[in-house]
Amino acid sequence: MKRVAIGVDVGGTNTAIGVVDPEGNVMVKDNISTPSHGDIERYISDLADAIKELIKSVKLLNKDIEILGIGIGAPNGNYYSGTIEYAPNLSFKGVVHVVKLLRTHFSDLEAVALTNDANAAAIGEMIYGGAKDMKNFVLFTLGTGVGSGLVVNGDLVYGHDGFAGECGHTTLVPGGRMCGCTSLGHLEAYCSAPGMKRTAFELLAYYNATDSVLANKSYNELDSKMIYEAAVEGDKVALEVFEKTGAWLGQGLADTVHHLSPEAIFLFGGPTAAGDYIFKPTKKHMEKHLLPIFKDKIKILPSELKPGDAAIVGASALVWKELEK
Amino acid sequence: MKRVAIGVDVGGTNTAIGVVDPEGNVMVKDNISTPSHGDIERYISDLADAIKELIKSVKLLNKDIEILGIGIGAPNGNYYSGTIEYAPNLSFKGVVHVVKLLRTHFSDLEAVALTNDANAAAIGEMIYGGAKDMKNFVLFTLGTGVGSGLVVNGDLVYGHDGFAGECGHTTLVPGGRMCGCTSLGHLEAYCSAPGMKRTAFELLAYYNATDSVLANKSYNELDSKMIYEAAVEGDKVALEVFEKTGAWLGQGLADTVHHLSPEAIFLFGGPTAAGDYIFKPTKKHMEKHLLPIFKDKIKILPSELKPGDAAIVGASALVWKELEK
Repeated sequence: MKRVAIGVDVGGTNTAIGVVDPEGNVMVKDNISTPSHGDIERYISDLADAIKELIKSVKLLNKDIEILGIGIGAPNGNYYSGTIEYAPNLSFKGVVHVVKLLRTHFSDLEAVALTNDANAAAIGEMIYGGAKDMKNFVLFTLGTGVGSGLVVNGDLVYGHDGFAGECGHTTLVPGGRMCGCTSLGHLEAYCSAPGMKRTAFELLAYYNATDSVLANKSYNELDSKMIYEAAVEGDKVALEVFEKTGAWLGQGLADTVHHLSPEAIFLFGGPTAAGDYIFKPTKKHMEKHLLPIFKDKIKILPSELKPGDAAIVGASALVWKELEK
Repeated sequence: MKRVAIGVDVGGTNTAIGVVDPEGNVMVKDNISTPSHGDIERYISDLADAIKELIKSVKLLNKDIEILGIGIGAPNGNYYSGTIEYAPNLSFKGVVHVVKLLRTHFSDLEAVALTNDANAAAIGEMIYGGAKDMKNFVLFTLGTGVGSGLVVNGDLVYGHDGFAGECGHTTLVPGGRMCGCTSLGHLEAYCSAPGMKRTAFELLAYYNATDSVLANKSYNELDSKMIYEAAVEGDKVALEVFEKTGAWLGQGLADTVHHLSPEAIFLFGGPTAAGDYIFKPTKKHMEKHLLPIFKDKIKILPSELKPGDAAIVGASALVWKELEK
């Protein structure tokens, strides 16, 4: 009997579903749209139908499959209550009881659990990825925003209300750039993919760098991949974007180290594809900010979750984590 | 049979020892000097003698006493290894095995454990103080430096190496004031008692405030208690010191909330005697930095440990925490 878990990733427009084997490989997957109609019961019913279809198809491949449970990663997902709460980019208003509703369709499963996407990624790293043997580590997701999942003594930190791990909203620069949350100077405003673009535009303006290849792109055209490609070509502005992003991220990671003293910090998401361009300055500047007792001790590592399936795989890992209890 | 714990607070010049009852009251206490000779075995032997004397004296008061163990709070104390490591203000060099050595004198006790002073204070708050019913909270000690103890899921956060909880060394102001650790802009450089004095002197210079009562004190004379007394008298510079200290501390506490989402943050130490002068601006500015999901949820509370005995009482609480395991 092969025991597998289902992962569900609730995104703004798309909900991805996959059946994941114990090694973290996606066996089969499917998508439904995340609706704009705002009716949570209808959405969960549609989701349950899609999951049941997927279970059928995986059992056609292999009869000896046991489905252990469903793990869900969702924006503003609250592990304690199994709810999504006031998610700005979803059509469901207020607090919606995802786990409770999904349970009505799957009463026989051992575990149905939900958390936010960055927490799911951290659990994925712990169950299938580079943190298998770690009890204290941190994962940062760099993308449109910056999320984080914190693991202490082998367990995810949820805090008193289920919402811990919002390190993207720590203050790096008092009175600095406006963050998406409207506060000033948050890490997310500097170290997300759009943050890198903001840095590029500030530098173009500062140097009046008409000779940079980035000077030929509009604000809405430019993305972090173009900055990476320009850096590889030796573009000075692009190279400085990585240096500055690393300086800011290093400062933020040092703050996290001073809180939690993790064994390692994993970085996940688009901008990490730039490899040494982002990892080297981040490490250098983190070390600069650390107390002597922490220096040269904390690893900064790329996530070992495969980019394409990471959200599904991370969510499915929640099931295994639940079964440990 | 009354079960009690012994608390030991290792300070730079003085080591305080007390027998603490289950309600957190010190029954008897004593002191020995923390030596400058650097010989750890001799020190531990002297400490063991003093503890044995104290046990004798408490048993004269009450025959039905059972001593459960010894808890030690010490600078750079490492819970995992029971060692003090490279403590800059102690004469013992390198890594010294305090628990192992003390165990040779007290092989029959149920628990002998050590941690740093801020962690001990946090455990004291959990066992005897205001955090009795809390599983997720944080304690900041404001004094010569700023220490912190973090509690997640009912356990202290030690990190992978035993040194977690150094929130005094998170960066508030990039490129700002030099911290005692030589890094720039750390919370401790702004929110400790000396940090408040530094703020006062910056403000005196900024306003050329010859009419402030603080203008009559030398840098070495001024302390945070004088600033408090001046604030009570309505001195504008002193009042602004509290406002600015609260702004910095509030920013730092918000960063901690975004990491851990604690139920409450306890403040401990000299500057907290100023009550609303420090608590009100801290709360106001913390709220300003928080994501909407955290606003108006997190309490900032004064520690309930009695100032005089808090270090002994906190250290003794380690014993009770050990026995929970």
